[in-house]
Amino acid sequence: MQRSIATVSLSGTLPEKLEAIAAAGFDGVEIFENDLLYYDGSPREIRQMCADLGIAITLFQPFRDFEGCRRDRLARNLERAERKFDLMQELGTDLVLVCSNASADSVGDEQILVDDLRLLAERAGARGLRIGYEALAWGRHVNTYQQVWNIVRQADHPSLGVLLDSFHTLSLKGDPSAIAEIPGEKIFFVQMADAPILAMDVLEWSRHFRCFPGQGEFDLPGFLAPIIKSGYTGPLSLEIFNDGFRAAPPRANAADGLRSLLYLEEKTRQRLAEEAPSTGNADILFATPPASEYNGIEFLEFAVDDNLGAKLSHWLERLGFVKAGQHRSKNVSLLRQGDINLILNTEPYSFAHSFFEAHGPSLCATAVRVKNSASALERAVAYKGQPYRGLVGPNELELAAVRAPDGSLIYLVDQEADVYGTDFNLQPGAVIGAGLKRIDHMAMALPADSLDSWVLFYKSLLDFEADDEVVLPDPYGLVKSRALRSRCSSIRLPLNISENRNTAISHALSSYRGSGVHHIAFDCDDIFAQVSRAKEAGVPLLDIPLNYYDDLAARFDFDDEFLSELAYFNVLYDRDAQGGELFHVYTEPFEGRFFFEIIQRKNGYAGYGAANVAVRLAAMAKSRSGGLRHAKL
Amino acid sequence: MQRSIATVSLSGTLPEKLEAIAAAGFDGVEIFENDLLYYDGSPREIRQMCADLGIAITLFQPFRDFEGCRRDRLARNLERAERKFDLMQELGTDLVLVCSNASADSVGDEQILVDDLRLLAERAGARGLRIGYEALAWGRHVNTYQQVWNIVRQADHPSLGVLLDSFHTLSLKGDPSAIAEIPGEKIFFVQMADAPILAMDVLEWSRHFRCFPGQGEFDLPGFLAPIIKSGYTGPLSLEIFNDGFRAAPPRANAADGLRSLLYLEEKTRQRLAEEAPSTGNADILFATPPASEYNGIEFLEFAVDDNLGAKLSHWLERLGFVKAGQHRSKNVSLLRQGDINLILNTEPYSFAHSFFEAHGPSLCATAVRVKNSASALERAVAYKGQPYRGLVGPNELELAAVRAPDGSLIYLVDQEADVYGTDFNLQPGAVIGAGLKRIDHMAMALPADSLDSWVLFYKSLLDFEADDEVVLPDPYGLVKSRALRSRCSSIRLPLNISENRNTAISHALSSYRGSGVHHIAFDCDDIFAQVSRAKEAGVPLLDIPLNYYDDLAARFDFDDEFLSELAYFNVLYDRDAQGGELFHVYTEPFEGRFFFEIIQRKNGYAGYGAANVAVRLAAMAKSRSGGLRHAKL
Repeated sequence: MQRSIATVSLSGTLPEKLEAIAAAGFDGVEIFENDLLYYDGSPREIRQMCADLGIAITLFQPFRDFEGCRRDRLARNLERAERKFDLMQELGTDLVLVCSNASADSVGDEQILVDDLRLLAERAGARGLRIGYEALAWGRHVNTYQQVWNIVRQADHPSLGVLLDSFHTLSLKGDPSAIAEIPGEKIFFVQMADAPILAMDVLEWSRHFRCFPGQGEFDLPGFLAPIIKSGYTGPLSLEIFNDGFRAAPPRANAADGLRSLLYLEEKTRQRLAEEAPSTGNADILFATPPASEYNGIEFLEFAVDDNLGAKLSHWLERLGFVKAGQHRSKNVSLLRQGDINLILNTEPYSFAHSFFEAHGPSLCATAVRVKNSASALERAVAYKGQPYRGLVGPNELELAAVRAPDGSLIYLVDQEADVYGTDFNLQPGAVIGAGLKRIDHMAMALPADSLDSWVLFYKSLLDFEADDEVVLPDPYGLVKSRALRSRCSSIRLPLNISENRNTAISHALSSYRGSGVHHIAFDCDDIFAQVSRAKEAGVPLLDIPLNYYDDLAARFDFDDEFLSELAYFNVLYDRDAQGGELFHVYTEPFEGRFFFEIIQRKNGYAGYGAANVAVRLAAMAKSRSGGLRHAKL
Repeated sequence: MQRSIATVSLSGTLPEKLEAIAAAGFDGVEIFENDLLYYDGSPREIRQMCADLGIAITLFQPFRDFEGCRRDRLARNLERAERKFDLMQELGTDLVLVCSNASADSVGDEQILVDDLRLLAERAGARGLRIGYEALAWGRHVNTYQQVWNIVRQADHPSLGVLLDSFHTLSLKGDPSAIAEIPGEKIFFVQMADAPILAMDVLEWSRHFRCFPGQGEFDLPGFLAPIIKSGYTGPLSLEIFNDGFRAAPPRANAADGLRSLLYLEEKTRQRLAEEAPSTGNADILFATPPASEYNGIEFLEFAVDDNLGAKLSHWLERLGFVKAGQHRSKNVSLLRQGDINLILNTEPYSFAHSFFEAHGPSLCATAVRVKNSASALERAVAYKGQPYRGLVGPNELELAAVRAPDGSLIYLVDQEADVYGTDFNLQPGAVIGAGLKRIDHMAMALPADSLDSWVLFYKSLLDFEADDEVVLPDPYGLVKSRALRSRCSSIRLPLNISENRNTAISHALSSYRGSGVHHIAFDCDDIFAQVSRAKEAGVPLLDIPLNYYDDLAARFDFDDEFLSELAYFNVLYDRDAQGGELFHVYTEPFEGRFFFEIIQRKNGYAGYGAANVAVRLAAMAKSRSGGLRHAKL
């Protein structure tokens, strides 16, 4: 498909936007009128700039409040249109978006609307230009694509066609299926926008909260599928009004935009294949190897130096990890417990070392187990992921890898691969099976404006799913969390952001100089046994106020002895509506950086203990500010 | 009145909140349960802390989902209540907020609700505690104060009373007038919250967008007046759920909260006086001298050093200003034109100098003309404004002054005062009457989270009015603007914020190291004559793209000659719905700091040219990035 984006979707001056659009790999651009008005160069110069960059101007937009205008204004409005037609010819584009009249004094008489638009189409047609007529969700009389098609059909002019915008239909809960019945050649243009479902004024929603496909909650494959069925082969364009995008770096944002279109095309292709295997022209849609099946996390690799490596190793040993191997030729060691493999990398002149230099002690790589690493990498690259090839020494296993948005690595490891045997001298007698069994989840701290970009990355390259956003109070602001999951939930990745500068998330970010993992949760079968052992071994646990346990007593029917045990071990508790239970405990941070969580899920509890995040954040704020510890029980 | 605030309204740990509340001068505090749960100290310790700070615990809140709960849960819920009553007795507060049941499975049978609440009141009464029953706007069956009063009346228990919250009534467009008919002693507590009018889900609106009285759009005097008429004499408390407040410095925010209550009391007192001069107990409300009448700006004082003072003086002279006087003993000069007086202060060891040291070249004082400076100052101080007394030399006039939120001074000058004769050697022959007549407005750049605080400052201390917020696009993000006006509009002060770091507003802020005036608009009668003179004198004007004028041609019926003139002089144009017209032109910034605007209003145009702000911001962005100038016409 021809992929396009409206200039209004990006931040910057017009040349900055056009350069970003070309660099991302779009084929075309919609010129939003204001971007042109505010630019200190002629339309011809813009035309040349686009030609030099290799992008077509797919659309000029918008032309407002035309059809059904007050009769005494019609002549003046036609004159206004002719001036814009002049401009379009200078720009070198043949299509203009005319959106349905939203003014209070416009008339709704269908014949007048038909006649006005036919008149405009004749004027346009005389110059070889075309009109795409769009229903605004807040149009005074016309606000559905069905009305638009009805009017376009009656006007019956070759220069007048339908312009579709997913937001205007889906925001009003419209059913897009009848689009399939419009002849494809009468659809002149398609704009795609996603959005979170918000109960608010539709105009405000549209102007501030749109987002790229896959970042919101609309069923966009359900909108695009009937368009493909209609036989439409024109541009697929993004028109995104978003307050954050208006300030985001345009190059990275444009790259996300292109990725979002590819993702939408893949999902639409799947939808069409489910409906009827041989639907129309589905082959014009992006195709890529399907996502892998996942089987959890193979290993995590930490970037540290010698000093911190020894400290972290000691920390982990107190948590029950055992030194299970040493790299044959590098300063890299392996710690193991249950199904958990942790690699501490202190090798100089390595990727880990440069990551350590940039971010301090941090997680520099995550290896996920996949069914087929070659096809997983192919998919990631098709989605514009950046593959990584490190230096591979003799007798070292080469692993497929792609860069995460923070520059860390995601290794794609075949699940049968012998990952450690080649590179490591393994400790034959090491007792591996202690109480922590597997990595339950890893939580990331991200800059506030990058959440959508991360969600799209994981959804497209790795085919992860995203849970709904949860908003949680920190004593110094709000924290927002959105969890990503592999489809079988064997990998879980809550992403956390905060717009306020003194929250735990913002502290984690400034300490990392960038985004990074800020806590890792290990699963176990007996929380009290594990915490008791950790406590004895000297693992510093996060102190939870007694008042929290008084409230648990009011909320749940616990006996005093059990409550005392929870409080003694600083164990937090949650219960979901289905009776699933969560027990979890947090450590203090390692070197003020990441911390660990020990977790036990019962009866299918699927969440992350959101009910307890506020008390944890308050305890962490107190711990940051070096508050006095009170003796417990 | 007893003035109170809920802990949830402020950021920080519980001790930080309590200290801020006491420091602001509140009499009491509502303890929001979560603040207690997350605090690592016992309820008795909190009680002692409040006693030491001299604030009463006016309320414990909330107790949820009690009345009409599923019958099999009633006993368990009563047990839960008893545990919370224990807690209240340790805290030393006798009143708990019970909000109407919001759970889907609660029952609405009125007799059950009455019986449940009577039962709870009996349990509470047995311990000398009281229940305040509140209607949540999203309560499942009970969501109006009328229903609450009906139930409380039927339950007829001395320990059960009505709890009122302005948000829950006004968000549902409820009529508060019937509150006057509830016996005052049956109203146990009153919570006040303002909010912007938003078309969104009421629960989300309530949890994230409340603000202090005077910062939003609710008619709060209309809510408080019937409460006063009822004979209520209990606490007036602020319960503000606001995302920004959760991260704002608690001391400054608590001070704003107290100021907002005083403002609400003054406005309510006025409302009651209008209705019936001798209403009930209106005397318990805050009283202060009424606001002054204003007659424009007397002078503006700039803090500069010798070098920049000379440069600015030269700049202003090119704009038609004349050196009209020199201070008798200080390095301070006066420039004049029409009714505009500008003071350039380069005196070392002065307030201006310390302001210059902190902020660079900037506006350090604004003198407003008032009818009675003594009463204006008294009012400002009653509203907790910080009065300023500078060093006054021999033969110098002493002016009343109060600090603005950015630390600059607002002089309150009697309109008949001879402000300059005492301090200055005036130039007898100076020709004063050139083309610029008066200061039309001064625009400020503020940190994004301080807008509400400034609005409240001007509304309360100076009795200004605030226009609605306008959102405007900068190429690198959004800018929000809210204009303040003295009641006769002789002083206008648009306040601008931006949450994005590369916008013009954010650049102004970082260049000022704090908030500050970023442009000053001068009024004239003939824009073309003034701009022509300025251009000739070498004033650098902000270059406006020709495309802007092409669009003007499409929108308005101008002849080509007039359009060419507008374009040649870089004059922007706007027309309002009533036919009012605005012509305005901007200079480039002085030393990258503030810039000037020349403005002509016709036919009662009252705005600030919002339609042209985007093109101005784009031109400024281009100018900042040092883009090439294109030859014009």
